[in-house]
Formats: sequence, C-alpha cells, structure tokens
Amino acid sequence: MTKAALEYYQTNRERFLEGLKAFLRIPSISTLPEHKPDIQRAVEFVGGELREMGMKNVEIITGTGNQNPLIYAEWLEAPGKPTLLIYGHYDVQPPDPLEEWLTPPFEPTVRNDNIYARGAVDDKGQAYLLLKAVEGFLKTEGKLPINVKFLIEGEEEMGGEHIEAYVAAHADRLKADAALVCDTEMFAPELPTITTGLRGLIYTELEARGPAHDLHSGMFGGAAPNPIQALAEIITGLKGRDGKIRIPGFYKNVKHPPRPELASWKKLPFNEKRFLEKEVGAPALVGEKGFSALERMWARPTLEVHGIRGGFVSEGAKTVIPAVAAAKISMRLVPEMNPREIVRQYTAYVKKLTPKGIRTTVRVLSTAPATLVSTQSRWIAAGAEAMEQVFHKKTVYMRSGGSIPVVDLFQKHVGIPSVMMGFGLPDDNLHAPNEKFHLPNFYRGIESVARYFTLLAQ
Amino acid sequence: MTKAALEYYQTNRERFLEGLKAFLRIPSISTLPEHKPDIQRAVEFVGGELREMGMKNVEIITGTGNQNPLIYAEWLEAPGKPTLLIYGHYDVQPPDPLEEWLTPPFEPTVRNDNIYARGAVDDKGQAYLLLKAVEGFLKTEGKLPINVKFLIEGEEEMGGEHIEAYVAAHADRLKADAALVCDTEMFAPELPTITTGLRGLIYTELEARGPAHDLHSGMFGGAAPNPIQALAEIITGLKGRDGKIRIPGFYKNVKHPPRPELASWKKLPFNEKRFLEKEVGAPALVGEKGFSALERMWARPTLEVHGIRGGFVSEGAKTVIPAVAAAKISMRLVPEMNPREIVRQYTAYVKKLTPKGIRTTVRVLSTAPATLVSTQSRWIAAGAEAMEQVFHKKTVYMRSGGSIPVVDLFQKHVGIPSVMMGFGLPDDNLHAPNEKFHLPNFYRGIESVARYFTLLAQ
Repeated sequence: MTKAALEYYQTNRERFLEGLKAFLRIPSISTLPEHKPDIQRAVEFVGGELREMGMKNVEIITGTGNQNPLIYAEWLEAPGKPTLLIYGHYDVQPPDPLEEWLTPPFEPTVRNDNIYARGAVDDKGQAYLLLKAVEGFLKTEGKLPINVKFLIEGEEEMGGEHIEAYVAAHADRLKADAALVCDTEMFAPELPTITTGLRGLIYTELEARGPAHDLHSGMFGGAAPNPIQALAEIITGLKGRDGKIRIPGFYKNVKHPPRPELASWKKLPFNEKRFLEKEVGAPALVGEKGFSALERMWARPTLEVHGIRGGFVSEGAKTVIPAVAAAKISMRLVPEMNPREIVRQYTAYVKKLTPKGIRTTVRVLSTAPATLVSTQSRWIAAGAEAMEQVFHKKTVYMRSGGSIPVVDLFQKHVGIPSVMMGFGLPDDNLHAPNEKFHLPNFYRGIESVARYFTLLAQ
Repeated sequence: MTKAALEYYQTNRERFLEGLKAFLRIPSISTLPEHKPDIQRAVEFVGGELREMGMKNVEIITGTGNQNPLIYAEWLEAPGKPTLLIYGHYDVQPPDPLEEWLTPPFEPTVRNDNIYARGAVDDKGQAYLLLKAVEGFLKTEGKLPINVKFLIEGEEEMGGEHIEAYVAAHADRLKADAALVCDTEMFAPELPTITTGLRGLIYTELEARGPAHDLHSGMFGGAAPNPIQALAEIITGLKGRDGKIRIPGFYKNVKHPPRPELASWKKLPFNEKRFLEKEVGAPALVGEKGFSALERMWARPTLEVHGIRGGFVSEGAKTVIPAVAAAKISMRLVPEMNPREIVRQYTAYVKKLTPKGIRTTVRVLSTAPATLVSTQSRWIAAGAEAMEQVFHKKTVYMRSGGSIPVVDLFQKHVGIPSVMMGFGLPDDNLHAPNEKFHLPNFYRGIESVARYFTLLAQ
C-alpha cells in the first residue's frame, strides 16, 4: 500500500475521532420507535460520508413500510481485481440501565485511550473505520486497489427483516468475491483475530395471562392462578439447573466441533478464573458439564431469559396477583440446528409446560441460523495476514457465541463467505452500560482494512 | 336508637357522599414516598371531621422519623356503658396499572350506584362511615349511647410499624371492651357478614445478582449465570405445581378449622364456577388438592409472587444477561403459624435453592400473624344483630384470606377482640384498578354501626 495513504491515516486521526464522535452522538436505537428520527439522522450521516469520500451510486434504500433504510454505495473501477462487499450497521442497542453509565451513552467521552458511548464498538466504531479505510485511498490516490460495495444497515439490533428482503432480491447487485464484516471482537488485547463461526438466534417473547385483572393476594391467594409463578415454572422447565435445555429434540443436530478446531481453542490465552473475575464478575461460571467455557459459549446452544416483568415492582409492598407477566427468551443455535424446527419444538414445549389456569402466547421476534466459514479460503488468509502486518502477531481464529444474521444471508443468497475481522475487545461492554472502543484498535482497524485491500489486489 | 339520628342519616346522604368524595380525592398512597404531602392532607381531613362532629381530645400523633401520623379521638361521657375502640385507615394502595382505570383513581366517580376511586372501600369509605355514624348521634342528641375511642392509621397498606409501636406503648389509653374494625367485606351482596378470622402475612423482597454488569447473551450465554433464571428456579422451588409450599417445616403448625366452622362455610352461597368466571376470570382455579376453594383462601397458607423485574422489558429485542433481578414474594399464614419461625425457614430455603453463580438477598418488609376471634362473644353477637336489623337477613360468619395486622395488635396488647363488620363486596376490586364501593352499603354501613352502638348500650 502507498505511503500517501498510510500517512493520511496517521495525520487524520484527530479528524477521524471527531467524525466518530459525531456519529456516536446520534441515538439511533432501532428497537425504540421514538428514535425513528435519529435513525434518519444516522442514515444521512453515513450517506454523506460515502458521498464526500467519492463513493459512487450512493443510495439510501428506504424499504417498505416502517423499515429502517439500508445504505448502498460502490466503487467498481478496478477491473480484473476482486470485489469486496463491506457490511456494517448504524443502529445501536438501547442504553438502559441508564443509571449505570459513568458518562451519558450518547455523549461520547474519551478516557484512558477508550471512547465510551452506546455503539462505540457495536457497530458504529467498526463501521466507521471501514469508511475511513476507503477514504484514505480515494483521498490520496483517487482510487482503490480493489472493487468495493458497501451495504450498511439499520436493523441489526432489532432483528429487522429489511436487509434479508434486500439481499434476497438483489443478489446480483451485491455480487462479490467475499464479504468483509466488521462487527466482532479480538480474542484478547493485542491478539489479531478472525471469527469463523457464529451462533444462530431465535428471539421470543413469552406472555402468561391468568386472572382477568389484578387480584388481591389475600382474598384470592391459594385459588387464583399466578402468571408470574407460571412463567417461573415454564422457564425452569425449559432449562435445567445443569444448563441442559429440556426441549425435546433440541440437541438432535448438535455436533461437536472438529478436533483440530477444539485443539486450537485450547491454545488460546484463556484463563477461566480471570475471565470469571474480570469479565463476568459473578461468584462462578455455570453451564453444561463436560464442556470447556469456550465450547459452552461458542459451540453449544443455550437458552437465556433477557428480561421479565409482571405485577408490582415499585418501592414497598403491594399484595397483588397480577393478571399478566411476560419474559423475553432467546435460544442461541449452533451449526446444523434448524431455526424453524427449534421454534416449533420450543413453542410446543412452552404449551406443555404451561400450568393450569394460565394462557401463554409465544411471539417469535427473529430467527437466524448459525454460520461457519472455512479458514482455508484465500479471503480469510489475506485478512489474517493484513492484521498480522499491523498488530505484529499471528492471527488466531475463534468462534463467537453471538449472532450476525447477515453472514448467513450473504452465504445463502450471494454465495460468498464472510471475513469477520473484528477490532473490539472482550471487555468492551457490548449491549451493556459503558460500552467502549479501544482507540488504538480503531486506528489499527483502519490500517488493517486498508492493508487487506492491498493484499487482495496482489 | 332515636328517630332523630335515623332521620339525620337519611337526610344527609348527599352531604356524606360529597364528604367521601373529598376524602377520596386525596391520593394518600403510603407506599410511595412522593405522596407524603397527601398523607398529611388526609390526616388533616380526618382530624377536622372528628373535631367538627364534637369528638374530644382529637390528637394527630406524628410518631418518630418518617412515620405516617395516627389520629386518636375519644368521647367518654357514657359512664357505665361499654367502650368501643374504632379502627380505620386513611392510606391507600398505589393505583397502578393506571391505564386500566375507566375513570382516574383519584377523581371519584359514581356509576350505577357505585363510587369508583382508589380507597373507595379499602378503607376510606369504610372509615368514613364510622365517622358519619358517630356524627349522627352527636349532631342530633349531643351524646353517644356508649363510649368511643377512634384510632385511625396511615400505614396499613405499607405494613408500617407506627401503629404497632403506639398500641404496644399506649394500651392503657386504648383500653376498651372491644374493637370495631371496618375493613372487610360481605360474603355476597345483601348478605350481612362478620369476619372472624384473618390470615397473617410475611412480605419479602428477593433479589438475585449474577454478573457484575449486564452481559451480551451471545458472548457469555452458556457460561455466565443468569439471575432471572435463578429467580425462576427459586420461585419454582418454593411452591410446587400442586400448590404445596415446599419450605421444610412450613406446614408444621397448620391445623384444620373446627368441623362446625367448615360445615357453616359449606352453607355459604358460594358457586365455584361463578366465582371463577365473575371474580377471577382465569381459565381455572388452582391450588392444593383436597381443600375447597374457600378453605384454600381462608384456612390454608399460601405463597404468592406479586411482582418480578429484571433485564430488558421494553419493546423489541435486547440480548442481555442482566446483572440483577428481583421479585416481591409474600406468604399468607393461618393461626398458630409463627411468623418469625416462617421467616427463618423461608430465608434458609431461599439460600438453599439459590443456584451456583448467584447471590441472593431476602428483605422482610412486614410480618403479622393470623388472627381468629370467637363467634360466642357478646360483642360479635350484637354486631350480627345490628347488621340483621339493617339488611333484614341473618348475618353469616366468614374468614378472610387477607391480613389486618391491627386485629392481632388489639388482641395482644389491649387484650380485646375485634368485631369485623365489613360492607365491601367481593367484586370491589381491592388493590386493583377500578376499586369501588357500593353506595347502598355505604349508607347501610352507617346505620348498622349506629344500631350497634345502641345495642351495646342496652
């Protein structure tokens, strides 16, 4: 890669940081309808950047109804060179619980080389470094070493279907040799990492209804059904104290990872005690016996309750049997588990677990299968080399227990693998208060992506 | 009783209703600290009424610290006649869920002979009818047929300790032959009822903590402990699907009610199907096998979850393993169960049920034992006769599954039984949206209490 581009990345760090801050100040929370105007502001911000840096055919794709826009852009003036489809998302998770943030989630603040804000690393910071990598070439050389297409979405955190519909319908337009997805993390600080596997996700809401209205627990307790008790029984029935999910048929297609992969995970610098203390902060780790913590998080399915509500929860005492209670419950899937089949098994089992006197309803908010990419492909190998050039360490391969549905879409509809170069750190507090992005990784991310372009062109 | 007093009750109905409305407009919610000024307004309202009608030594008793005031008043100019200690409470439950009220909870509204407002029947309406009964005598005859002491409190709905401390310390001042407590209901419309037994109550908060902060469920799911799952397991462990509470030792002192009492309950006009459809509105009743619904609600202990919260509960999907979750859990006790012993058993069993990786804390907000009064006493018999004179039906005896801690205090410290004449109806929505009081019962309550005074003087 050229000296000019490299120098551009060095001398523009402060400007990049200011740009990132401006992006982070927009509370583009996709799960909360009242933030619709902020979604629009974020779209315009990204679109403006793409146009300003010289990308062609920048298009805001509004979709149908209330969907959050996609942003497409391309630069296809490197005939004979590979084409990379670059993905990121501009929407963020809700920031609550607000009171646990040290500085407000939408007032980005730099402390100790980290930038703190909702979306700092997931995914605005990582989407923005992709833009800056491209900008460096276009501003200094007026061209890119490869062909590039951007597809930036705004419904990643809400499991929205806009991108699915678009990718399915426009596979031709999105045709590329590989996708570059910057929405993962490094296994450890200073350790360049490419993620090769993701768990799938089924996200559901479970509602339990008992009495027609709230009842006095003194008058009715002992005879009236209690929907909170019912939810507790159902949740307990879904997953045992041993961490095993009890839904009949759930584990049918669950396979062990290949031996070499398992062996490579054993070599990763993972200290369970340190992980527990530094990252989890609970008295102990839990989960299925007979599997390492990494296996349990990367290669085993799980079921988690994300939220629960029902009845009286303010200060003090109110003796009520509530009419309704609800929980948000997801399952993470591993390769070969069929989301549709699991949804069927789960829904049937919830019905079976529903106690007398209670009506339950299950609403499925989103589903995505697990994905696995081969470490053998040249697209992965070049990515690993690009990161090694910047971090001066051998790149490791890991899986992630998280879910990035677009990786499955690109495989299924466009037929291309995704190269998941990630620059986040394990303690970046994704989806939690005090989310951050380590700024040295932001800058190294820009350079890694730029070097990746160069390597692909060779 | 005199014609003049009777006429007074008839001709002042409209004024009584306006007075009740004024009382109900004060949102004197004791469990919410922000309503402290409303508590004060309610106190002044009651104190003003007592003074205006001619009660003596009206005293606002402020208590220590932040306690809600008690109101004491007396009229002791009937030498040789019995003394009645009259109890009511001016505080009310919180009104939520607000959106389910047809008219605002603190804008009393009359529809179809019912007055709708928070506190309409529990207990402002019933406390107010006691005042009006006394007012009738004092305004028409300048005297009462018996001696009367009022003790009106403002912490009944929050399990506050002011009245307990006061009754324990001032048993001499409160000395009386019996207490009249107007805070219960009639078994059925038009059926005069005296309540002879109440369940006790232990109200607790249970908090479960897992990770130090909210975690991404994709990254950590399968290894990090989930406090919502833990709460579900503990709740399920506390009470079985059969309705049996599993706390070791819990049922040790639980006795069956006497056979004659059980037999009298069988004669009550109770239709389980109608009860389920009209009052509960759930698909089925639940609870311990081998006991009738009335037994389960009146003479069996129970454990109920009143509220639960944890994690993400807004619209949409957030994939978080929360750091903390909490539930409000109470137990209703029957006679001979010792609240202190049950608290000990409960707390120990919660610890035992707490899964690996989770820390739980139990906070006990209030405790009160069950109480039982004899139907043989002349104080009860006169109450039954007074109601018969007004309702023209034989008075029935019932128990209530609810808890009125003051009944235990009067027994323990003052050594007197409580006569629980109640004028509420089973569908009055106590502690729930659209609480109401049937106005004919408000007026009949006034007259019943007045006739009770007259009968006691004979």
